[in-house]
Amino acid sequence: MKIKAGIVGYGNLGKAVERELIKNKKFKLVAIFSRRTVTSKYGTNIENYSDILKYKGKIDIIFMCGGSAEDIEVQLPEIASKFSTINCFDTHSKLKKLTSETDKICKCSGTVSLMACGWDPGIFSMVRTLMYSLSEEIPVTFWGRGISMGHSDAIRKVDGVVDGVQFTVPSKSAILKAKKGQLCDEPLHYRECYVLASKHKEAEIEDKIKSIPNYFLNQPTFVNFVDLKTLSKLKSKQSHKGMILSNIRLAKNKKATLEFKAKMDSNSMFTALVMVRYSLAAMSLANENQFGAYLPIDIPISKLLTPKELGFAIKNLC
Amino acid sequence: MKIKAGIVGYGNLGKAVERELIKNKKFKLVAIFSRRTVTSKYGTNIENYSDILKYKGKIDIIFMCGGSAEDIEVQLPEIASKFSTINCFDTHSKLKKLTSETDKICKCSGTVSLMACGWDPGIFSMVRTLMYSLSEEIPVTFWGRGISMGHSDAIRKVDGVVDGVQFTVPSKSAILKAKKGQLCDEPLHYRECYVLASKHKEAEIEDKIKSIPNYFLNQPTFVNFVDLKTLSKLKSKQSHKGMILSNIRLAKNKKATLEFKAKMDSNSMFTALVMVRYSLAAMSLANENQFGAYLPIDIPISKLLTPKELGFAIKNLC
Repeated sequence: MKIKAGIVGYGNLGKAVERELIKNKKFKLVAIFSRRTVTSKYGTNIENYSDILKYKGKIDIIFMCGGSAEDIEVQLPEIASKFSTINCFDTHSKLKKLTSETDKICKCSGTVSLMACGWDPGIFSMVRTLMYSLSEEIPVTFWGRGISMGHSDAIRKVDGVVDGVQFTVPSKSAILKAKKGQLCDEPLHYRECYVLASKHKEAEIEDKIKSIPNYFLNQPTFVNFVDLKTLSKLKSKQSHKGMILSNIRLAKNKKATLEFKAKMDSNSMFTALVMVRYSLAAMSLANENQFGAYLPIDIPISKLLTPKELGFAIKNLC
Repeated sequence: MKIKAGIVGYGNLGKAVERELIKNKKFKLVAIFSRRTVTSKYGTNIENYSDILKYKGKIDIIFMCGGSAEDIEVQLPEIASKFSTINCFDTHSKLKKLTSETDKICKCSGTVSLMACGWDPGIFSMVRTLMYSLSEEIPVTFWGRGISMGHSDAIRKVDGVVDGVQFTVPSKSAILKAKKGQLCDEPLHYRECYVLASKHKEAEIEDKIKSIPNYFLNQPTFVNFVDLKTLSKLKSKQSHKGMILSNIRLAKNKKATLEFKAKMDSNSMFTALVMVRYSLAAMSLANENQFGAYLPIDIPISKLLTPKELGFAIKNLC
């Protein structure tokens, strides 16, 4: 039987998840919930977000595709009490609290929520934690060059911003130092912001962006004001990259290094792919009555596979 | 309370595990079991292998450090019925059967066994399976330059060979093709053999080595005859490398690539480090009465961490 899926939020990520669900035979996409008036090029049933609770019992899992900063935090308590969910919430400082609160809701409601479950946060979180377990030190992560959805959302929520986008750019010299296992006290990244706003508010907006905690505060941030055409072109860049480096001391003059890299032509499509794959684990946990909120580090990789795929993996990959 | 550990087998891996356990405060190394007369430079209690069952109740987990081909297959059924265990069994074709048989023994006996749990097989198996879940294709693995124990053993079994060692060397052109996502019909590795043998048998031995099925037949194999001193020097090389590459199709002209690399100055020390870390998961599963045999793909990364480390990881790595 197909997994009945719903999507909340119909931006880049929501659209990528829609596309992924439609091409995946394991799923039936029941509805997309949005507060805006939108249409789907695939003809998917679009509902107003306020009607979501009417779908209780008709949808197995909701893909939460709104922004972390406001949408997911607000929507998750309500939605997790009625549906299993998956999100890629990326406000690191709030993750522990939101996971623990959602866990209580899920356990009371008989649902499962997978938290912070895209590529990063997501599979990168898991690889970082694996590396940390071996080295007992925080591995170094470099992102970019690429658009950060979370950071772009944060810009767009600033009063006076019509639209905006943020590119995360890794520092080449920091990468070199990290590969050599050298301590690096320079910034690892730069944040390039491109913003469309009314001229007379520019200085004020730049200040506001640079002081957004968790996203830009205390980070080398460059704010550029651009016209609509330039912004549209920049916003259409979908590629992204990420790299995690870990140096492990084995003995006095012996070490090991681990490196994990991802490079993608479309950030939202790759995030969607990961979410859809991990949603199989959420469904499997829900079917086993193992209700609660989980992080990718709580999910064994075998849970991502169908029984047939698991047999193949044990024979060919393990 | 410290985890009481034992080691079976006292070759390179057994010695590396001993070293790792001694420097890790979570463990107390109770005894090493060997069929040979050996001594420990750390003064560890050495017992004859035949006395191992006397330690039931006195040891929480046994690190199985013998060879896959003969030792582990024979010893595991007996040991897993009395102790929780961890091994890095690497005969892929027999893993499924051995895991399933050990699972039954563990469930009857109230023990846990972690199977094929070093770096490869081990964390590489897990990363390969993750990549497979996303790409639905087998990722490409390159090993080396480094010594392959299995291939070295195969050489040493050839009639007339006094001693020998085999280095696995990845093909640079195959790596380039794999990185571009191109189909690669050339060999991924070539095999450098160094052999000590009596002069008049060299031609015959070279032919014999090159025709060993599964190991050298139809693979680019280079056989070099060397003297004892040269061979000893080559055999002491402990470094190894591995790399997994995965190409994921996202859409018509869009793809993602994932890459995982490990590089180590000592193969056995890194394997030992991974085994010791994963043994914490075995202990945690045993404490929760979740008896059975597990592969690394069955172990969520959070199980590798102490509660304190887990809190840190959720806050800083997820």
